[in-house]
Amino acid sequence: MEKIKIGIVGYGNLGKGVEKAVMNSKDLELAGVFTRRKDMKTESGVASYLIEIAENFKDKIDVMVMCGGSAKDLPVQSPEMLKNFNIVDSFDNHGNIPMHFDVLNEVGKQSGKCGLVSVGWDPGLFSLARAVFSSILPDGNEYTFWGKGVSQGHSDAIRKIAGVKNAVQYTIPKEEALMKVLAGENPDLSVKDKHLRECFVVALADADKAAIENSIKTMPNYFDGYDTVVHFITEEEFNASHTTMPHGGKVIRSGKTASGDNQLLELSIKLDSNPDFTGAILTAYARAIAKFSKMGNSGAFTCLDVPIGLLSEKPSDFLRKTII
Amino acid sequence: MEKIKIGIVGYGNLGKGVEKAVMNSKDLELAGVFTRRKDMKTESGVASYLIEIAENFKDKIDVMVMCGGSAKDLPVQSPEMLKNFNIVDSFDNHGNIPMHFDVLNEVGKQSGKCGLVSVGWDPGLFSLARAVFSSILPDGNEYTFWGKGVSQGHSDAIRKIAGVKNAVQYTIPKEEALMKVLAGENPDLSVKDKHLRECFVVALADADKAAIENSIKTMPNYFDGYDTVVHFITEEEFNASHTTMPHGGKVIRSGKTASGDNQLLELSIKLDSNPDFTGAILTAYARAIAKFSKMGNSGAFTCLDVPIGLLSEKPSDFLRKTII
Repeated sequence: MEKIKIGIVGYGNLGKGVEKAVMNSKDLELAGVFTRRKDMKTESGVASYLIEIAENFKDKIDVMVMCGGSAKDLPVQSPEMLKNFNIVDSFDNHGNIPMHFDVLNEVGKQSGKCGLVSVGWDPGLFSLARAVFSSILPDGNEYTFWGKGVSQGHSDAIRKIAGVKNAVQYTIPKEEALMKVLAGENPDLSVKDKHLRECFVVALADADKAAIENSIKTMPNYFDGYDTVVHFITEEEFNASHTTMPHGGKVIRSGKTASGDNQLLELSIKLDSNPDFTGAILTAYARAIAKFSKMGNSGAFTCLDVPIGLLSEKPSDFLRKTII
Repeated sequence: MEKIKIGIVGYGNLGKGVEKAVMNSKDLELAGVFTRRKDMKTESGVASYLIEIAENFKDKIDVMVMCGGSAKDLPVQSPEMLKNFNIVDSFDNHGNIPMHFDVLNEVGKQSGKCGLVSVGWDPGLFSLARAVFSSILPDGNEYTFWGKGVSQGHSDAIRKIAGVKNAVQYTIPKEEALMKVLAGENPDLSVKDKHLRECFVVALADADKAAIENSIKTMPNYFDGYDTVVHFITEEEFNASHTTMPHGGKVIRSGKTASGDNQLLELSIKLDSNPDFTGAILTAYARAIAKFSKMGNSGAFTCLDVPIGLLSEKPSDFLRKTII
């Protein structure tokens, strides 16, 4: 069987995670990495190209996996790439997902390609869990907890602020809130009640730290409304203590079926490396969207629109025998 | 918007669970219950009919939810109903799923209807988790734990044995095995290493108890190969201690992404009432298969083939705004 040809757009932590996952998949072939920097050397040795010449690969790549940031890269790059390729992106700015989706739907309908948006673990796996859980237990409460761990989207957003040299953001669940939920107390909890956001920032020498802190704490969709703590640290401290990327989280639905019986559903993940895991999810969905496109679909989609069986390298009769 | 019309075939615990879930759903309408007994009085007051006259409802019911047992009812009833209706069944005899699927696929392709098989929590929700987890972490080990709780399929299978008046089967995870898995030890565990099967049986007065015990312990696909314990008890004891139906279980995948980082994924459920919960799942999938059929599909399908978004009562733009 012919392999599905994958391109990667953007070569940060996430792009490298996708690269590793693609190299590990027998049914996928990495056709190239596309970046803004010339002659980027890739870890796998696959060729890299300037993003501007991606169009030349129009008939040579089945799916472009978009690994740029949600704040500034994806709103521009995803629609641009969708003109010529099926794409998967990890757009994680929850408030703007409907708008991003609508833009891509227009482009995809015109180009005849599929744009799968907001894939990762949240949005992504956690969205799947929220959809399944709430459809089965409509009478219930839902709780999403993130962390403790690094949020790539939030770290990326901080790094785009003027005067910031490097930054990392840890999301930390409030233990007291989690205990109440697991005990079936069905508490009323805002996102703020459930989490702290802790930021470690390396500022440029002449930067206005107060202005940076204020930019972070008031950033719409990302930090506004959260308990946010900002620490300024040296580059040495950053490199010594803040370069691994563990993460985790839970989606819990606590609800009742029609006779009043309590039912508790939980999806829980514990990750040693968030970018490699998110890269592995994007890679599985790249495989899925390649097949979904071949089935005659076009436009924009989310993980709720794509059958789960398409994620697997294995054919459906094998899955029925081994997984169902 | 016109409501989706649901029929229920079989009116045991599961059928009653579906009835309650349908009555609780604004977009669904319960059109009738079909049983082998004449003039069955339903809990909701909806009309009941003999199963033989179901065909008369050909254009009045969108989806039949099949609530009979997997051992003897569904292999006959599911293909029969699929000649005239979309169906959802809870066929849970893992070893025979591919054969059941193939039979229904043939019938559905001819009738132009959709047959969704093996829906529930295992097979069903747990199958979804196994498919997603293994597609993301192909390099890993997977562990499914059931219980402690009643397995309807296994209890039903025991009740079909000659000489058995009533029976319940509890599946119980072995704690020691679970601890090893959560610690990331990746142990090699057979299903037998992970679970006990404990059966409480009320025998008819003249029954051969040794023969019953032997029939249980050697039953292919259900008990053969498991540690099975059989207790014979009185009807009084049964009614006093074994009539509620709690259950639970976990699917855990412990694996590594390409650089060797450990990643742990877990779906966990804790149920006060198994039949009501399974009924709620079948009901959500009945909604999904009604929409999936309208999209022009026909034949047999599993939960891996149907997009998750279709399970929800809510339209997809609403889900993108609130759930993704």
